[in-house]
Amino acid sequence: MTLKVDPDQLTSFMDGISKFGATPDGGLNREAGTPDHGNARDWFFGELRTRGYEVQIDGIGNVFAVLKANSVEDSPVVMVGSHLDSQPFGGRFDGAYGVIAAFLAVEALRAEADAEGVPLGCRFVIVDWMNEEGARFQPSLLGSSVYCNELGLNYALTRCDGAGLSVSDELERIGYRGTDPAPHADIYIELHVEGNDELEKADLQIGPFTRYWGALKIRAAMQGETSHTGPTLMHDRRDATLAAAHAIIGAREISDRRDGALYSSCGRLVVQPNSPNMVADLATMFLELRSPDPDELSAAEAELMQVLKDSADKAGVNHEVISIDRREAGSFDPRLVALCERQAKTLGLGTMQLETIGGHDAVPVSRRMPGIVIAIPSVDGVIHHPTEYSKPEDLLNGANVLAGMIQAIEQAGGDLDQALRDHT
Amino acid sequence: MTLKVDPDQLTSFMDGISKFGATPDGGLNREAGTPDHGNARDWFFGELRTRGYEVQIDGIGNVFAVLKANSVEDSPVVMVGSHLDSQPFGGRFDGAYGVIAAFLAVEALRAEADAEGVPLGCRFVIVDWMNEEGARFQPSLLGSSVYCNELGLNYALTRCDGAGLSVSDELERIGYRGTDPAPHADIYIELHVEGNDELEKADLQIGPFTRYWGALKIRAAMQGETSHTGPTLMHDRRDATLAAAHAIIGAREISDRRDGALYSSCGRLVVQPNSPNMVADLATMFLELRSPDPDELSAAEAELMQVLKDSADKAGVNHEVISIDRREAGSFDPRLVALCERQAKTLGLGTMQLETIGGHDAVPVSRRMPGIVIAIPSVDGVIHHPTEYSKPEDLLNGANVLAGMIQAIEQAGGDLDQALRDHT
Repeated sequence: MTLKVDPDQLTSFMDGISKFGATPDGGLNREAGTPDHGNARDWFFGELRTRGYEVQIDGIGNVFAVLKANSVEDSPVVMVGSHLDSQPFGGRFDGAYGVIAAFLAVEALRAEADAEGVPLGCRFVIVDWMNEEGARFQPSLLGSSVYCNELGLNYALTRCDGAGLSVSDELERIGYRGTDPAPHADIYIELHVEGNDELEKADLQIGPFTRYWGALKIRAAMQGETSHTGPTLMHDRRDATLAAAHAIIGAREISDRRDGALYSSCGRLVVQPNSPNMVADLATMFLELRSPDPDELSAAEAELMQVLKDSADKAGVNHEVISIDRREAGSFDPRLVALCERQAKTLGLGTMQLETIGGHDAVPVSRRMPGIVIAIPSVDGVIHHPTEYSKPEDLLNGANVLAGMIQAIEQAGGDLDQALRDHT
Repeated sequence: MTLKVDPDQLTSFMDGISKFGATPDGGLNREAGTPDHGNARDWFFGELRTRGYEVQIDGIGNVFAVLKANSVEDSPVVMVGSHLDSQPFGGRFDGAYGVIAAFLAVEALRAEADAEGVPLGCRFVIVDWMNEEGARFQPSLLGSSVYCNELGLNYALTRCDGAGLSVSDELERIGYRGTDPAPHADIYIELHVEGNDELEKADLQIGPFTRYWGALKIRAAMQGETSHTGPTLMHDRRDATLAAAHAIIGAREISDRRDGALYSSCGRLVVQPNSPNMVADLATMFLELRSPDPDELSAAEAELMQVLKDSADKAGVNHEVISIDRREAGSFDPRLVALCERQAKTLGLGTMQLETIGGHDAVPVSRRMPGIVIAIPSVDGVIHHPTEYSKPEDLLNGANVLAGMIQAIEQAGGDLDQALRDHT
């Protein structure tokens, strides 16, 4: 029998979580470590506690809800979840959907096990990763990267936002600077809304990601000299903003030369002193390059370094590459891809293999254990915007695929090869 | 006999005023309407009150210290001064020097009149204009523009800073939202440090400005759409920052095509939402064009409008010109130029006629009455920077030229033609 999650619960939990940080336009402003973020966590994990989950918070503020159920002793741990933080003025579905669907999939499985009176073949943990978005604190995927030992705890805790507030202090303030050890896991599955419109255009419902693009996140500064925008002779100006403008266009051209097969961006740009009458002496850029091909990414990095130098020269300023965060390209577990496709087929849903370009917590996690991200459609491919929207039937389809996947894994006692054999 | 200001008083007052908003690097952060600005005014005008000046504050927070002395009834009013506000992390001399030199020049004249026991042929007012810099509140020259009826009082009071605080509330908070009528004046003279190094290079001490450049201050926004810097296909992006980068370079090219004879800048640039992972949907630029030639300025304006349109098109975004603040080119009173040159010559100082490109309060004021700005050298031409510095002897020379000028005007009963004839 196919396991199904409760559609009313799905609606009710999505509505409930969306109240925290809600903006009048239907979107969300729930950046990591803010009171709204804390309140959302308090409410959601409060609900889980009343249902008998044991809630644990680790040192970087990841929250784990461990299912307390009759399970085979020392059986494999399946972790499911996503993140409850949002972009500033982002949407309701990015992150929150994955956490709630994870919870309801596990709940469906537990209800069935309770009815049958047999112990579960796996143990289950719902996870809410800290600061997936990386809008307020950089880098993104902060909590999952610490979990996977890709970032040090102390480094992560001392990251500061634009106002100089640290991750540590802000977690403390909202009550999520935990002391629990993070629970071990053996398999990780995450549901997420799609970041563009490939599924929608193809009229398909489920998109298992097969691999993730590599990304290069570069913080670079142009360093000129302040002067008056009035009397200072044009050829005496050392304008950091002008240099940054050249670099932003140069970064875009790196992508354009590859017909958009490699992505580039400058999402954040901070100009100082940023007075209308002063030539800026500092312009700090947060640039990104993304590609599925490590060689292309490496070539593009070299081009960008040249762009930064040339741009600085054009404006007569200096430049500095402050930091480079390299995220390697890689693949998700093909057995989880196959399991997802099989489960979708069972439910009569169409699938399409996707590649993720955006970061997901599943990326670092899948370097430590079999892991995957599975997408459901987002209307018009909108994400990180208040109009981000996924239809109720799509939300339900994704949650049901997830429930079926964890059921198959549970029945195989956590053995993915076995789980695939069992149903083919 | 040549009137001289007291060099010790000049040093002592410059040191005193520089304590308010002092930064560790020897600079100043005393933006308009801040507590430091209020404290500087309290101290300076407190000193003037104890010397018998009557201090008046008008509705926009200009401060006028009226000399209470034995003067010919209804004689012309000579106003001297500058401004006590600074750029964020600017220097000690820009503005403050002009106010203090004005005060000490008037004091020198008063002392002589007291000694001679004859009534003064003119009345005198020391002025400290509100928000000359325009860093915190736009537009600049706010107080002097209201004084000259070029800006409405209500408009000026409702300008807000980046944090949404209004001029009105901030003046109230520091005790400078006055109710006194602004005193009438007939002649205006301002001393200021030079904004570049023309005097220094020519080894000259005094630079009367003969005319002021016209300026066009344009606030324009690029309006795209937020999306994820990861999954969003490159050709689907509507990147406001990319459009702004094209516009900033285009504005510079307008100047470069004229070999720097026309100035352009983008001093302030605000990107939203300014998250590393989000393509920006809004980039607001504060652009300027400056030229002594109204026709060139007009041609450059048309080019800039085309640049804004083309830049928006290149990034697939919309653009909007939010406001254009036009400041016409014009001339200072040639009699005041001549009087300055003659007085400098009397003191054995070399002069050079200059043109001011930066805004000065004397620009709007000189459209209402004979007015002038006179520059003294600034080392390396530095202005709006903590290392801004003028040598003690240059400060003294300027103050002595000013004292001589107001003495000549006073002796001629405020008749500038007569003042010139008296000494030639």
